[in-house]
Amino acid sequence: MAQFEMIAFDADDTLWHNERLYASAQARFKHLLMQYHDGEWIEERLYQTEINNLKHFGYGIKSFALSMIETAVELTEGRISGQDIRQIIQTAKEMLGAEVELLPHVAEVIPVLAERFPLMVITKGDLLDQESKMARSGLAAYFQHVEVVSDKTEGQYARLLEKHSIPPHRFLMVGNSLRSDVLPVLALGGSAVHVPHAFTWAHEEAEPPRGQPGFHALEHLGLLPGLLDALAQQGA
Amino acid sequence: MAQFEMIAFDADDTLWHNERLYASAQARFKHLLMQYHDGEWIEERLYQTEINNLKHFGYGIKSFALSMIETAVELTEGRISGQDIRQIIQTAKEMLGAEVELLPHVAEVIPVLAERFPLMVITKGDLLDQESKMARSGLAAYFQHVEVVSDKTEGQYARLLEKHSIPPHRFLMVGNSLRSDVLPVLALGGSAVHVPHAFTWAHEEAEPPRGQPGFHALEHLGLLPGLLDALAQQGA
Repeated sequence: MAQFEMIAFDADDTLWHNERLYASAQARFKHLLMQYHDGEWIEERLYQTEINNLKHFGYGIKSFALSMIETAVELTEGRISGQDIRQIIQTAKEMLGAEVELLPHVAEVIPVLAERFPLMVITKGDLLDQESKMARSGLAAYFQHVEVVSDKTEGQYARLLEKHSIPPHRFLMVGNSLRSDVLPVLALGGSAVHVPHAFTWAHEEAEPPRGQPGFHALEHLGLLPGLLDALAQQGA
Repeated sequence: MAQFEMIAFDADDTLWHNERLYASAQARFKHLLMQYHDGEWIEERLYQTEINNLKHFGYGIKSFALSMIETAVELTEGRISGQDIRQIIQTAKEMLGAEVELLPHVAEVIPVLAERFPLMVITKGDLLDQESKMARSGLAAYFQHVEVVSDKTEGQYARLLEKHSIPPHRFLMVGNSLRSDVLPVLALGGSAVHVPHAFTWAHEEAEPPRGQPGFHALEHLGLLPGLLDALAQQGA
């Protein structure tokens, strides 16, 4: 197996914590609405609103905030208070300003890998938010490119690989989402490492493609250099 | 003067109508709140909220929607109805789905220029919204790159020029905003063509840098090929 020309990383919940910000915002949201409905129903309606709004608003915190507001109006039949709406907007601002906390092993592994491979980041979400988190993460210097994309489909990956002149079989993607980081890359003939995260949004879940060529799963990012060594030896 | 290696265009209100969508949304917003305040005060508070929120939410329709909601809560001291909040969110969805209407001369001029120069688009706003408008505009095939950026500062332009290996003095930017499309490009030693648009957001206004080398102003995009011919002759 040839060494990789580019290793790309997802950012949210691969390099740094993210989903727990959403979980905590959702807990506050449920608390706001608990006089109207039970928690499970609130969660289900919010999720449905988010999915319906993806085509309008895309991914990210601003989209999530608009979906929370829409769900709050709907679930209270318009009786939500202005004060509660203000709190939802305030929650969104706090999420956007939250400290960027790297996941375990990231601070050690990324600099080591950057000496051996060109690295890039491929992430969804709001442009300004992702750029700001990258700047605050202390990792920016290790990545040659940061690509914020509106969705992570096979077509989007194909365009990125073409733009950067990377042959798919020399490309490795590392991330926590089977749906966004693994399956579309394998479909293009690339390799992908799934590093599961304790919290993963239901929308990102999929069946692991066990046994498919190019698919690897690791418990945490600290194991990535060892996997790359093993793959290089197999190729030798 | 050397011919340009790259001509870049702003998108909103340079290639297609945009600000009038905001103006019409703002008119609906004022109508919602007219029982509470007079129009001028509503406009002023909305503008202040938008400016304060730029650092959190950046540019684009989602950010505008969140600022309208925040302003509505504030100006009604929390008495805004759920129904009115729903209407603001609905307005945002309609803006995102609005027909892309090219400005005069764009459909004729862009294909002609694309035969003579590499063209690209550099635009602010939401990634998904800008990609979707570009796809619907019918112009995508004429642009080698579409760059959606979180802000149009001198630093952002410097990074883009480096990324695409374009020397500043061989770069021409065309757009309707002096603040975003003209001044930062001139500061880098590039050239810029200002094509004013009837509606320009107050935040984008600035003093025209008349007489500064590399600065040009045109009444409409139809005059751009003639300007490029004149500049090429001066350089010969």
